[in-house]
Amino acid sequence: MNVRVGVIGVGMIGQDHIRRITQVLTGGSVTAVNDVDAARAGQVAAGLPGAHIHDTAAALVADDNVDAILVASWGPAHEEQVLAAIAAGKPVFCEKPLAPSSAACQRIMDAETAAGRRLTQVGFMRRYDAGYRAMKAALDDGTLGPPLLMHCAHRNPSVPPYFTTEMSISDSAVHEIDIARWLFGEEITAATVLSPRRSGQAPDGVRDPLILILEMAGGALVDDELFVNARYGYDVRGEVVCETGTVALADTSEVTVRTANRHGGRVPVDWRDRFIRAYDTELQEWLDAVAAGTSTGPGTWDGYAAAAVTDAALEALRTGQRTAVTMPERPDFYAKAP
Amino acid sequence: MNVRVGVIGVGMIGQDHIRRITQVLTGGSVTAVNDVDAARAGQVAAGLPGAHIHDTAAALVADDNVDAILVASWGPAHEEQVLAAIAAGKPVFCEKPLAPSSAACQRIMDAETAAGRRLTQVGFMRRYDAGYRAMKAALDDGTLGPPLLMHCAHRNPSVPPYFTTEMSISDSAVHEIDIARWLFGEEITAATVLSPRRSGQAPDGVRDPLILILEMAGGALVDDELFVNARYGYDVRGEVVCETGTVALADTSEVTVRTANRHGGRVPVDWRDRFIRAYDTELQEWLDAVAAGTSTGPGTWDGYAAAAVTDAALEALRTGQRTAVTMPERPDFYAKAP
Amino acid sequence: MNVRVGVIGVGMIGQDHIRRITQVLTGGSVTAVNDVDAARAGQVAAGLPGAHIHDTAAALVADDNVDAILVASWGPAHEEQVLAAIAAGKPVFCEKPLAPSSAACQRIMDAETAAGRRLTQVGFMRRYDAGYRAMKAALDDGTLGPPLLMHCAHRNPSVPPYFTTEMSISDSAVHEIDIARWLFGEEITAATVLSPRRSGQAPDGVRDPLILILEMAGGALVDDELFVNARYGYDVRGEVVCETGTVALADTSEVTVRTANRHGGRVPVDWRDRFIRAYDTELQEWLDAVAAGTSTGPGTWDGYAAAAVTDAALEALRTGQRTAVTMPERPDFYAKAP
Amino acid sequence: MNVRVGVIGVGMIGQDHIRRITQVLTGGSVTAVNDVDAARAGQVAAGLPGAHIHDTAAALVADDNVDAILVASWGPAHEEQVLAAIAAGKPVFCEKPLAPSSAACQRIMDAETAAGRRLTQVGFMRRYDAGYRAMKAALDDGTLGPPLLMHCAHRNPSVPPYFTTEMSISDSAVHEIDIARWLFGEEITAATVLSPRRSGQAPDGVRDPLILILEMAGGALVDDELFVNARYGYDVRGEVVCETGTVALADTSEVTVRTANRHGGRVPVDWRDRFIRAYDTELQEWLDAVAAGTSTGPGTWDGYAAAAVTDAALEALRTGQRTAVTMPERPDFYAKAP
Repeated sequence: MNVRVGVIGVGMIGQDHIRRITQVLTGGSVTAVNDVDAARAGQVAAGLPGAHIHDTAAALVADDNVDAILVASWGPAHEEQVLAAIAAGKPVFCEKPLAPSSAACQRIMDAETAAGRRLTQVGFMRRYDAGYRAMKAALDDGTLGPPLLMHCAHRNPSVPPYFTTEMSISDSAVHEIDIARWLFGEEITAATVLSPRRSGQAPDGVRDPLILILEMAGGALVDDELFVNARYGYDVRGEVVCETGTVALADTSEVTVRTANRHGGRVPVDWRDRFIRAYDTELQEWLDAVAAGTSTGPGTWDGYAAAAVTDAALEALRTGQRTAVTMPERPDFYAKAP
Repeated sequence: MNVRVGVIGVGMIGQDHIRRITQVLTGGSVTAVNDVDAARAGQVAAGLPGAHIHDTAAALVADDNVDAILVASWGPAHEEQVLAAIAAGKPVFCEKPLAPSSAACQRIMDAETAAGRRLTQVGFMRRYDAGYRAMKAALDDGTLGPPLLMHCAHRNPSVPPYFTTEMSISDSAVHEIDIARWLFGEEITAATVLSPRRSGQAPDGVRDPLILILEMAGGALVDDELFVNARYGYDVRGEVVCETGTVALADTSEVTVRTANRHGGRVPVDWRDRFIRAYDTELQEWLDAVAAGTSTGPGTWDGYAAAAVTDAALEALRTGQRTAVTMPERPDFYAKAP
Repeated sequence: MNVRVGVIGVGMIGQDHIRRITQVLTGGSVTAVNDVDAARAGQVAAGLPGAHIHDTAAALVADDNVDAILVASWGPAHEEQVLAAIAAGKPVFCEKPLAPSSAACQRIMDAETAAGRRLTQVGFMRRYDAGYRAMKAALDDGTLGPPLLMHCAHRNPSVPPYFTTEMSISDSAVHEIDIARWLFGEEITAATVLSPRRSGQAPDGVRDPLILILEMAGGALVDDELFVNARYGYDVRGEVVCETGTVALADTSEVTVRTANRHGGRVPVDWRDRFIRAYDTELQEWLDAVAAGTSTGPGTWDGYAAAAVTDAALEALRTGQRTAVTMPERPDFYAKAP
Repeated sequence: MNVRVGVIGVGMIGQDHIRRITQVLTGGSVTAVNDVDAARAGQVAAGLPGAHIHDTAAALVADDNVDAILVASWGPAHEEQVLAAIAAGKPVFCEKPLAPSSAACQRIMDAETAAGRRLTQVGFMRRYDAGYRAMKAALDDGTLGPPLLMHCAHRNPSVPPYFTTEMSISDSAVHEIDIARWLFGEEITAATVLSPRRSGQAPDGVRDPLILILEMAGGALVDDELFVNARYGYDVRGEVVCETGTVALADTSEVTVRTANRHGGRVPVDWRDRFIRAYDTELQEWLDAVAAGTSTGPGTWDGYAAAAVTDAALEALRTGQRTAVTMPERPDFYAKAP
């Protein structure tokens, strides 16, 4: 089956997903696009033979030639667009965040629960990275014993001018928030943010680096270094410490070079360099699941939980205090597969 | 454009390529199959809606619904099938070897040259491996200086019962033969085979390991350990030694595990585990090239050269002597891109 | 010059230092011993031709055949013994802790200051480890920029029955406390202790692992995982994150083994395995300094500062609160070399 | 016991051993020196209180204040000096080569055998390197199965003006010749030398790199890349391939640095940087053995065997042919310990 995808939001990320669906993956095609910038929608559609341009997201969702929706618009628009897809009974892939507030995520949960079918996948692509998958497999096979701690680092070489300290939480740490929930199979109950000495490389007004400490429901702790002006490269580190061993992301350089009294490998230049394969796998598995009529990836509950933890972490950043996460029990509707 | 592929030979490798085209890659579909085993052809076609089963390879090549041919039959059948594709003016991807003898490869070259267009790609998939590509990039950027030596090891955990010593050359070493030509941008002029102490793990009658030494046209030497009963895993090693530095394939484990007083990573279990992405990239780039009406991969000359070097290496294995490679100059028709 | 060393306390550590002085290092000999257990003193002295057994530490210090004192008794006895050495004007090497309280350390500082000469070295042997020295060299050469963070882990496979949670601070973390002060060239101003999920491998009553967070005077943060029942081996990790790069302790396995689908190296079995060379270097440099009439290693101020930070960390452990370190300015007498 | 050492030859290596005995190791002192350059002998002795300067090596050997002899003169003088030590019944440590020809080594063997006691140790210091020792331990514990192959590389950054191609065999490869014999516990039966493309960095008249292939008595093969103008650093590589696994020297960098999009470690700058600890261990164990009246290191037979293999390898270099090693059976007098 060929999944006919309608893409809402065709900026950088939307275009990258369109390239992926049309030039890299199998089983999907882009049959409709929509963007708040009509000219941009037109330019993108020009490269997609047969694709229809819709004036509104609602019209795109309603299009009979659209089987599934990919939302890559800006965050504040997500809620309305995802709700429209749910109302139409169409599967929707929504880039993170699912919605900018946990209240908005709650409304999406309510709608989806009422509709009676899990239709939403949220773009937490790290779950599709070969490194994190090998880490999860090592944890799940049990030989290392129960996990007690996780040490993370999330280092970007630099940030754009509009970057704010809050974005280190909402845009960067949200990845570790989701991955910790996924690896531990538990919710996060509290967050604390520490502010080390500020890097002289950070733009005015940005506190960088930060240390985020997350408390898991079972008592494990996750520390996460967020350093968005690390200069030397894009480097995502992670080690889970268990009762009888540890598992850590390895360096991913394909070759070792020896020259000038050094041996070593390459550090990725940016997130695309590091995670491009994870994005490919993520969207391929989404297309496969849509074609199969199933839902396999991180869903609305995961989007909601990430938003709730992000809210607590932002509060912790503001106040300097440990902040509990406010969140209900996971509903049966979103129960994990047994 | 969707490339409609006809697959000749639907054994293990053929089926794997069909899976790849239909479930992993984009821009291709399988519209016809042929196999000497008609029942097997029928079973495979049953999973391919709309695919036609042809009684003969010739009929498949002639099928108007076939844009390009993928040859995954056994080696002795390749020559006739590739010649048919060339005669029909259709692009053909032929699994290695292009043909079992350099004489047969020469006939394919003659036909293709007469046809006036490069239509043939040979399945040397290592050129599409991220490790070898990074190695080639490191060599080509010049900072390491001219290459002088290459050390290779090609280790398989075990071999099937029908395996012969000769196959360590024709099936295993042929990969290093092609990759050395590609990395150095030079032909191989002579081969020597050394026989170390035989492993007690090798089946009766199989000399294992072997050391193959290749001499490049520019004087560089390549040594290649061929060890097909290495037991511990599937491990392909390579280091090119240049005038001011070296570049080596790195270990590819995604995670580092620490347990029981050891730290370390995983060794691949087999060639599929190690090279699956290279196969994906290889066939995707072939589909892209076919769609674009171009030819980008290893071609008939590369298949011929590999056959000529393999002939020399087999002679060296038989005689224990250094054996020169008999090969004409590279024809202008197969000149490398400037 | 041969330094004649009198050893106070000839238990496991004292005996190891005696072995070192007599069988490994140059420029020293053991001419006198003292121990609260007279029988043990006698047994040890029996292996040291010409060594005198003293009934009291004071008598040993006064011995004209003793040029320098090595204190390896239990902590509560250190103060009196070190004060005796200072009073006698003899150099003294004191195993950590310098004294069990910062008040006692203060009294030693007062005496040494009054004596007008730095005579005391404290046994912080990590400063002599090749890994930490290479780390300090990398920090000091400036190419990585100012340090902002340090991530540490201190993992022991298991602990003896008398081990208490407090000892994770006073015996384990004290090493990172000293090394952080040394690497950053700054004092520590506050400590916080976090208690993750307790390992099921920890003995009853021991909270393990812990996370200790240290705040440096310049604002940098140091997080230190203390895990004394890590089971898989003795593993000390450390990474300093600077403004334009990081430096981390590397794995120290001498060989890489490939077998059974794994590649990797050895994790040390215990602290001796990991740090034996650091102990050798430490004591050799002490002997050299004594012979030269100088003082080069961590001294009384370092012992005092470590005690003050340990006090704060123990308070933080008890209260669960961030606890400021109470400490005066570094006296001019203990000023760092320019 | 203090071993009183007389040093014959106080050039660079002799002085380094004197520094080692007097400033690093325990249990030895230098009580006498001799050098063909009397002025140099005088300068060196000036730094050694109580050391006697002898006009001749023979006088030094006869000195009653000399318990053991260290020969660090130039190679052609070794035979006479070692024979003198044997005649005097004094243990002698002789830097490699034991003597410049296998015939001369034979004469030393005859004398030592007649004397009835193993007195000679040859300076093959790699046997004392922690890496090679871990490699031997891995081989000897049996889990990897019998060894079949060894791949070596011996890379120097550059060579002095007087360096000749032959010295790549006699000065560089001799280390792998000894270490292969030691690791495999077998003699070498033949040698072949291959000449790859010459590095443009090599001085006029020097063929560099070379590949030396050694055949072990049990059939295993050892290939050894000799590259003395490798520029990028001093790098000694080694991997032994066994029936069920391999063991390789690991990189020895103490820290990993991440900066400028690279991660990695340091390559040693020269042999001293790489092997200084091996020299320390070697000489300490020699002093210990002398004090104990035993002999533990590589002896006269090892010096002879290395010379015989070097002779064959030099012949192979000259002729381009595989050359058998001419060597008798290992005499009972030099039987390995059971």
